[in-house]
Amino acid sequence: MTAEDGAPAAARRRGRRPAGEDTRAALLDAARAVFVEQGFDGATVRAIAAKAGVDAAMVNHWFGGKEGLFAAAMQIPVDPAALVDELLAGGLDGIGERIVRRFLSVWDASRGGPLIAIVRSVSSHEQSARMMREFITKVMFGRLARGLDIDQPDLRAALCGSQIVGLAMIRYVIRLEPMASAHPDVVASAIGPTLQRYLTAAL
Amino acid sequence: MTAEDGAPAAARRRGRRPAGEDTRAALLDAARAVFVEQGFDGATVRAIAAKAGVDAAMVNHWFGGKEGLFAAAMQIPVDPAALVDELLAGGLDGIGERIVRRFLSVWDASRGGPLIAIVRSVSSHEQSARMMREFITKVMFGRLARGLDIDQPDLRAALCGSQIVGLAMIRYVIRLEPMASAHPDVVASAIGPTLQRYLTAAL
Repeated sequence: MTAEDGAPAAARRRGRRPAGEDTRAALLDAARAVFVEQGFDGATVRAIAAKAGVDAAMVNHWFGGKEGLFAAAMQIPVDPAALVDELLAGGLDGIGERIVRRFLSVWDASRGGPLIAIVRSVSSHEQSARMMREFITKVMFGRLARGLDIDQPDLRAALCGSQIVGLAMIRYVIRLEPMASAHPDVVASAIGPTLQRYLTAAL
Repeated sequence: MTAEDGAPAAARRRGRRPAGEDTRAALLDAARAVFVEQGFDGATVRAIAAKAGVDAAMVNHWFGGKEGLFAAAMQIPVDPAALVDELLAGGLDGIGERIVRRFLSVWDASRGGPLIAIVRSVSSHEQSARMMREFITKVMFGRLARGLDIDQPDLRAALCGSQIVGLAMIRYVIRLEPMASAHPDVVASAIGPTLQRYLTAAL
């Protein structure tokens, strides 16, 4: 499930390291370069693997696919395809709160650490801003909105992105109380209905 | 109204410059130092003026007061006290949409330029994060929430902050379409109800 700490459980148990970790690191380097150059749609698993000098099957092995590799390249500690599938499986009812809870469970675990680096990078480099745009539209909320079969999926995805990015900024980067230390239940019941409306109401 | 470009209209008309601009710049430097050291509540106009080596009356003259000086020190191109008063004067009804429209009118004019610098700074320096916390709670949304005489003003202020900061990130920093170029009417009607709920609904 986590694309970031990456090593498959079996590999970790066996204590295997160098070759696998080298492959993984080479894929991440190649992915950053190719995603920046080609964008998410343009980048192919084959091209990234070729640039890394490894077999394309290694992308599935280490990252579960192109989305997982993209998330790992952005230091996002979760496989977004699995996350979106999990959220969609629960149906429309209450999906707003489920999204907030799921994000908090990932971010609270690391106290938002990687997020701060992402925000710094996005505000300093156009390449990072582009990757964040593609993460939100192609990988995370766009995928979610399309999975829900609703009108205006791109606008809904961007609205969800605005509230989730803002939540991350307030809770982890700016650390504004009482939101910085509020219990996930409080955050989910306050912000869940916003996402619910962005995803399901007439706009 | 704008604290950022600063020179009072009368002074500008007369073409007066050096001494006034020096005073203003000295106050901004002193303000940044004192606000960082003492926080918004602890910092006094007197202490800032003393550090700048100018008369305390110059703070009112150039910035309209402590809030305006604070906003200018953060490169926020608006006098927040006047902005909050203006928003409160319209009453509770439709205040969510009015807030969104007002922010867009300020930010769209500069295409969000200063915001990007603020985001970079907030994600890199704890001092900037602290100033942003205080801007949201003491100067902007906290003041607004207290002006509305509602329960849980701090939580409501933080929730509003999360959506407005997220809107700024998506529209100007990440520049995610269709939100990046959406007409202000579209943004206001989509996001206004969120702020309305954060300010006025039972949480």
